[in-house]
Amino acid sequence: MTLSSRHIITMDDLTPDEIVHILDTAESFAEINERRIKKLPTLRGRTIVNLFLEPSTRTRTSFEIAAKRLSADGINFTASASATVKGESLRDTAATLAAMSCDLVVVRHKMAGSPYILTEAMDCSIVNGGDGMHQHPTQALLDLYTMRQRLGHLEGLTVGVVGDICHSRVAGSLVPALRMVGARPIVIAPPTLLPSRPDVLGAEVAYDLDEVLPELDVAYMLRIQMERAEGMPFPSLREYAKLYGMNSTRLAKMPAKSIVMHPGPMNRGVEISQDVADSDRSLVLEQVESGVAVRMAVMYLLLGGADSGAAA
Amino acid sequence: MTLSSRHIITMDDLTPDEIVHILDTAESFAEINERRIKKLPTLRGRTIVNLFLEPSTRTRTSFEIAAKRLSADGINFTASASATVKGESLRDTAATLAAMSCDLVVVRHKMAGSPYILTEAMDCSIVNGGDGMHQHPTQALLDLYTMRQRLGHLEGLTVGVVGDICHSRVAGSLVPALRMVGARPIVIAPPTLLPSRPDVLGAEVAYDLDEVLPELDVAYMLRIQMERAEGMPFPSLREYAKLYGMNSTRLAKMPAKSIVMHPGPMNRGVEISQDVADSDRSLVLEQVESGVAVRMAVMYLLLGGADSGAAA
Amino acid sequence: MTLSSRHIITMDDLTPDEIVHILDTAESFAEINERRIKKLPTLRGRTIVNLFLEPSTRTRTSFEIAAKRLSADGINFTASASATVKGESLRDTAATLAAMSCDLVVVRHKMAGSPYILTEAMDCSIVNGGDGMHQHPTQALLDLYTMRQRLGHLEGLTVGVVGDICHSRVAGSLVPALRMVGARPIVIAPPTLLPSRPDVLGAEVAYDLDEVLPELDVAYMLRIQMERAEGMPFPSLREYAKLYGMNSTRLAKMPAKSIVMHPGPMNRGVEISQDVADSDRSLVLEQVESGVAVRMAVMYLLLGGADSGAAA
Repeated sequence: MTLSSRHIITMDDLTPDEIVHILDTAESFAEINERRIKKLPTLRGRTIVNLFLEPSTRTRTSFEIAAKRLSADGINFTASASATVKGESLRDTAATLAAMSCDLVVVRHKMAGSPYILTEAMDCSIVNGGDGMHQHPTQALLDLYTMRQRLGHLEGLTVGVVGDICHSRVAGSLVPALRMVGARPIVIAPPTLLPSRPDVLGAEVAYDLDEVLPELDVAYMLRIQMERAEGMPFPSLREYAKLYGMNSTRLAKMPAKSIVMHPGPMNRGVEISQDVADSDRSLVLEQVESGVAVRMAVMYLLLGGADSGAAA
Repeated sequence: MTLSSRHIITMDDLTPDEIVHILDTAESFAEINERRIKKLPTLRGRTIVNLFLEPSTRTRTSFEIAAKRLSADGINFTASASATVKGESLRDTAATLAAMSCDLVVVRHKMAGSPYILTEAMDCSIVNGGDGMHQHPTQALLDLYTMRQRLGHLEGLTVGVVGDICHSRVAGSLVPALRMVGARPIVIAPPTLLPSRPDVLGAEVAYDLDEVLPELDVAYMLRIQMERAEGMPFPSLREYAKLYGMNSTRLAKMPAKSIVMHPGPMNRGVEISQDVADSDRSLVLEQVESGVAVRMAVMYLLLGGADSGAAA
Repeated sequence: MTLSSRHIITMDDLTPDEIVHILDTAESFAEINERRIKKLPTLRGRTIVNLFLEPSTRTRTSFEIAAKRLSADGINFTASASATVKGESLRDTAATLAAMSCDLVVVRHKMAGSPYILTEAMDCSIVNGGDGMHQHPTQALLDLYTMRQRLGHLEGLTVGVVGDICHSRVAGSLVPALRMVGARPIVIAPPTLLPSRPDVLGAEVAYDLDEVLPELDVAYMLRIQMERAEGMPFPSLREYAKLYGMNSTRLAKMPAKSIVMHPGPMNRGVEISQDVADSDRSLVLEQVESGVAVRMAVMYLLLGGADSGAAA
């Protein structure tokens, strides 16, 4: 089975069946990552570009490791080193990379929708590695993968997504992804961190975290963007932590087998307390681990699936 | 056939026959770049360093992809990360890299002539990736390659090189390269963008672009260095575009099969109009594509030509 | 023989026998580095991360080349690109890398002791690539290797370590390393560049360089940290050079077969004169060359020694 879209820009590029197929494929790659020799010849001779025009290490490194474990040739094209210094437009940068015969570009850019510019200028596959406040689909996929590994299924799970829903690309992909696989997302935030019409999210809305805790199979804590903390629409980090932070008291109110997730990097003491972050009900590191396997699956399936193995 | 010089610093390091040999070799590598599996074992176990002490992405990425497609071990050694922070001289940096047993260094540096410092401090091959306002020979080679692919031959072509001749390392390599292969270069610029004695260039000189358009097989538009725009010796970008920019009106005055080239990144609306940049008579992206193949050829021939394949 | 410690943070992680074993192993890798095809399949499929949170090129490049020559997948994780921008702690960065299944991390950090944070957060091997003013053990190992190559043995050598003993991580590893292999270290510096209780160093102490020159088999010149020159505890660079710089007059007072070493990058004219730096009794470039071989040996032995070859 190959994917119907050449690109993964938003969750809309995938069908529910394709999501399951990606997660199943990732399972076999996860097994590779536990071996001593973590290497497959699958994408040998294919060129994968990491076009990261916003600072990032976790996501870029995850994609870079995924590409190397599949034996692809990986190229890092980062902001500071970039020709954008010379005023070249994103469209021309994309066309330039396309002319160098690359097969897949992972793009991170501060502008929502920017990956679409690449799809117009290039005839290779584009994967959105995070575009502004819009989407971050491989994050949602690795989150689903992590939930399924621990809880055994996705259908019917109640997942509370807590925090700055309004500005989060993680939420932008995770909420629709959860609906596609039959889970029940609840966005939980003060009104100031929700869109003005939260009904369009396709999720239930709650303002009081404590009230919904007993229903949650997963509490997904979003990161507070400390970089823009001064402009934040709530009185203080301390108040935010008090009302919306996950801590051991709140964890105790959740069902016994429920879990806590976070896309990282964590602000310990703000959206998640030190002890919860390090507890065995926190799956933060499992998410990171899943990320490599899920990205391997995405690269593999976009670049030809089973066919691409023939080259090895 | 191997090259007579171990280095390519200026076009003088090559003979006309060697230029043709490089272009012929590049043709076979261009064919590899169109395959699904873009990889040859030719330079396995050879170490190639990209020593880029000036910001660059296009050129560095082109060399990096070329090295990877030949299976060389590539090392990026860029300015921001560099020991030049600690005041180490270029000579000591070169000696240090040499001691690590590298086989080829591609160097970009703001100082004209700096690649020669490397040839003295190292016993490996040096390729000039652009030195100040001096030369950029692989750019000239890829330009020749692109012209030959489209127009079928180089001898007798009339090529107008338009713009800041005085400060352009692209022109510094392209003009002599054109002469070596029997083409006829004409440099076209206002007197303020020409050297004080333009006769030493070895090219015809024209001040009025419109006058020479009907003769041109190729209009090669140089980039206006916007970074130093405030110190530019002409009244405004708008006036520059009006007098020396390529646009559809001018393109119509050129012969039917003539082409437009640009080393990139383009300032659309300044030296080249939007519609010409995207027209099928603009070969800007073909130049980028040729770049990878030509650089593969240069690396292959400098590091031993046919011999180096034996190791695979 | 495998190493008893999984990590190399300080010289205390090694026994004298293990030091000799590393040097012997490095000898066989040095031979590889002189070949045309500098590549072994030994660490194929192993992931090695260069976590450099302080600017460095020499050391990072040396480790990167070592990893590539052993066919490991190398990932560069540098400060400027790093999630530390977002306030992530070193501990969380380490845990994140661990979750991506890396096998070995080389860490450079301005804080003494920081590599221990990694050993707690990760279950892979950690190599200290320089931590603050504390230690830099692979530098000491390559220094021992270089001395042994040139002088034939280590036991009984008298080695003067000259300069800013108090702030030097190079001295911090070299002095104990010399003692472990039976050499006789003498630290030579003005009192202001020595710790307040120099007796704890385990080395003889001398204040007058000229006095001890006739005894030295090796004069090891430390680098003056020009970056913090304004806060330096001596009147001027000129005075420093006069009292503690190596020059041809001083070299003439040393035994005929004695050598001069420096960890680089050199401040020519300060701690070492131009002519001595380039003389055949200066082993600065041999040290760089040894660095790649010694780091290959360290990676090879930490990641399983002879076992790891089985995968090739």
